[in-house]
Amino acid sequence: MSVRVQAGGRPWNRLEWTALDEPARRRALTRPVQVVAETTRQAVAGVLETVRARGDEALRELTARFDRVELERFEVDTAEFAAAEAAVGAELRRAMAEAAARIEAFHRAGMGRDYAVETAPGVVCERIVRPVPRVGLYVPAGSAPLPSTALMLCVPARLAGCREVVLCTPPRADGTADPAVLVAARLAGVGRVFKLGGAQAIAALAFGTASVPKVDKIFGPGNSYVDEAKRQVAQSGAAAIDMPAGPSEVLVIADAGADPAFVAADLLSQAEHGPDSQVLLLTDSAVLLDRVEAELEAQLSALPRADIAARALSASRLVLVESLEQAFAISNAYAPEHLILALREPRAWLDRVEAAGSVFLGDWTPEALGDYCSGTNHVLPTSGAARAWSGVSVASFQNFVSVQAASREGIAAIGPCAVTLARAERLNAHANAVALRLRRAGA
Amino acid sequence: MSVRVQAGGRPWNRLEWTALDEPARRRALTRPVQVVAETTRQAVAGVLETVRARGDEALRELTARFDRVELERFEVDTAEFAAAEAAVGAELRRAMAEAAARIEAFHRAGMGRDYAVETAPGVVCERIVRPVPRVGLYVPAGSAPLPSTALMLCVPARLAGCREVVLCTPPRADGTADPAVLVAARLAGVGRVFKLGGAQAIAALAFGTASVPKVDKIFGPGNSYVDEAKRQVAQSGAAAIDMPAGPSEVLVIADAGADPAFVAADLLSQAEHGPDSQVLLLTDSAVLLDRVEAELEAQLSALPRADIAARALSASRLVLVESLEQAFAISNAYAPEHLILALREPRAWLDRVEAAGSVFLGDWTPEALGDYCSGTNHVLPTSGAARAWSGVSVASFQNFVSVQAASREGIAAIGPCAVTLARAERLNAHANAVALRLRRAGA
Repeated sequence: MSVRVQAGGRPWNRLEWTALDEPARRRALTRPVQVVAETTRQAVAGVLETVRARGDEALRELTARFDRVELERFEVDTAEFAAAEAAVGAELRRAMAEAAARIEAFHRAGMGRDYAVETAPGVVCERIVRPVPRVGLYVPAGSAPLPSTALMLCVPARLAGCREVVLCTPPRADGTADPAVLVAARLAGVGRVFKLGGAQAIAALAFGTASVPKVDKIFGPGNSYVDEAKRQVAQSGAAAIDMPAGPSEVLVIADAGADPAFVAADLLSQAEHGPDSQVLLLTDSAVLLDRVEAELEAQLSALPRADIAARALSASRLVLVESLEQAFAISNAYAPEHLILALREPRAWLDRVEAAGSVFLGDWTPEALGDYCSGTNHVLPTSGAARAWSGVSVASFQNFVSVQAASREGIAAIGPCAVTLARAERLNAHANAVALRLRRAGA
Repeated sequence: MSVRVQAGGRPWNRLEWTALDEPARRRALTRPVQVVAETTRQAVAGVLETVRARGDEALRELTARFDRVELERFEVDTAEFAAAEAAVGAELRRAMAEAAARIEAFHRAGMGRDYAVETAPGVVCERIVRPVPRVGLYVPAGSAPLPSTALMLCVPARLAGCREVVLCTPPRADGTADPAVLVAARLAGVGRVFKLGGAQAIAALAFGTASVPKVDKIFGPGNSYVDEAKRQVAQSGAAAIDMPAGPSEVLVIADAGADPAFVAADLLSQAEHGPDSQVLLLTDSAVLLDRVEAELEAQLSALPRADIAARALSASRLVLVESLEQAFAISNAYAPEHLILALREPRAWLDRVEAAGSVFLGDWTPEALGDYCSGTNHVLPTSGAARAWSGVSVASFQNFVSVQAASREGIAAIGPCAVTLARAERLNAHANAVALRLRRAGA
């Protein structure tokens, strides 16, 4: 990247938008390189084929190789659930229950619902909602276990009423699953958990094995192997997926009145996810930008995961823009996963948001609230996918089936239209199926 | 396929479900072979790469090769639209307008809408709806042009309010587009049409060229090259797609009271789509089955496209089941694109439908009504995809963005929960971003 590097060895990049030419602007909005290496693609294809062909035996071998643990049985049993319940403290348990309740309240209100319209006399068209029958949820445990992700996936799956809900999460070194993930799953009503990680977990869910049930759709974030495995099973038609997944990212639009400490804290909280996290700040105030830089330096040095955050910040951009209008145009072109509006009148600007995963309004709404417990989902489109994908919702776990019912009167009303169109498309059997009934109906 | 072949050279297969063992049942529900040949995959990858690298010049070469027509310019101009308006007769035009009005009425009622929930005192979570900014619609013209597909894609795209709507359809031998497709597009408010077909059309939409705008999401059915191209651009992240596409299919569940002529006409209207169409009849009445066979013979011989329909019927199954309950279990396992309930009390059985694209209730609702003008969409999931995909709707053209706003009171109420969860996940910067505000808010 040929972006200007800060003097003084600061790990982030400060840019002035109006000073950039078109190619430099394009570079400034380019995500950290995410091209899947051919070796990753082939390794994942190999794992998928191995699990498809040899099932549980292959899962045992791959788990030994990648997770460095020998497992005879993958499914978490009653004893392990009981141990997890005992291991998780009351405060964490309470926080998970509280978060689950708000996630449920928000998601329940947005569930897909049936509706019906009489489109012509005697013709009723309906949409009926059905749960996706069998779903698989993937809860990663990369640098830290993520019980919050278990809540974000299990709660809407249960609300949708999916017949079979199966969760996979990588085993720890001792062969157990993270206790908080297990408690979160149970809190949300999911009782089948398999200790499987990586591409082999996705393969097991897509194809099924003797011990792992095959599912219709796979949900959840993951590293580049998990993402590549999801893309491959989706392409082959083995299972549908919630969305492509990439590194997490935030874009903050801040005005002169924003609190620089808050802004810096939000940028860092995104950056600590991993070295490939992407962090952007757009502001029309050079003074605020200076003050955010000072805050970043101060806060960065105090973080336990400062090394990761500093590496993530190296791909970040702090951008001085001419106006907030320009900031929104840039944001819409970038289509961020998380969009923080650190503005004095954030709601007044909301209409300008064209593409984003989740939006955070004002100084008192850090991204971390949405990550955990405001009620919205944190499984969101990354890498610009927000232009055509939405975050996980109950609808992600539902199918929408159309239904039509015509009476004799109904086919008399609309049948001639169908016959005309069928003949124009030279589909004579279509025309016949209608014309035959029109004759019988005496129309 | 080792299914029993009928005596007398009838091209379909009559089976008795209870007489089949498990492997035979599985074979009976297997779609006509749809494995994409490695040669198809590579040919499509080659086309995509060529268009990505060389744009319009590549489109000209590929159109000359595959469509056998030399085009300097792909976009339909004002003169061609005017000629199309003049060429389409009043009856067809009226039928298209009538169909468009009903499609609009049904789709409008099902549009995604904003909602808001106060999940805690001072915490408001919302879902706001945004159109997918740029969409590409593909209207095939295989054995016949399909103006109805143009309506099915253009109407919901316009209802969603997509900023840029572009339609591609293959050029005819004389270099023009099908006039009915052009009139349908204009009726539905879509004015940018490009004469491009096959994988090269999908490539142009996914990557953009000097003359064809890049889009965010691609919609519409197509042959195996179009489907493979859509899957490849979706996997690479170049564009999202509506759904995987496969050959059309129908499953009819009929009881003893069904009209054998109607049932036979519906099976044939599906079969005429193409030799790889799939047709299934499930009935608990051997008498009805005999009578449907007799009707099939009589109607088949009268069809202009009898050769195609006969070939499609060769992969079809007429299945005698023990009970209607068994029929619904089989149907749910198969997850048909179209499901016709030729039953005396069709609505009473609707609750049993777990997975299907679109359902047709009773004797007076042939599939052809939904194909053209009942109001529902005919772009539907095939090949069992109905287990995890839904047909095209306005929501297919919409993004759902979550929004949250916390006040000082709000972060005081839910911030401690977020801090507890962030610490449990060892994401300290997340905890800091909240804790910092809690201190400032005096909570």
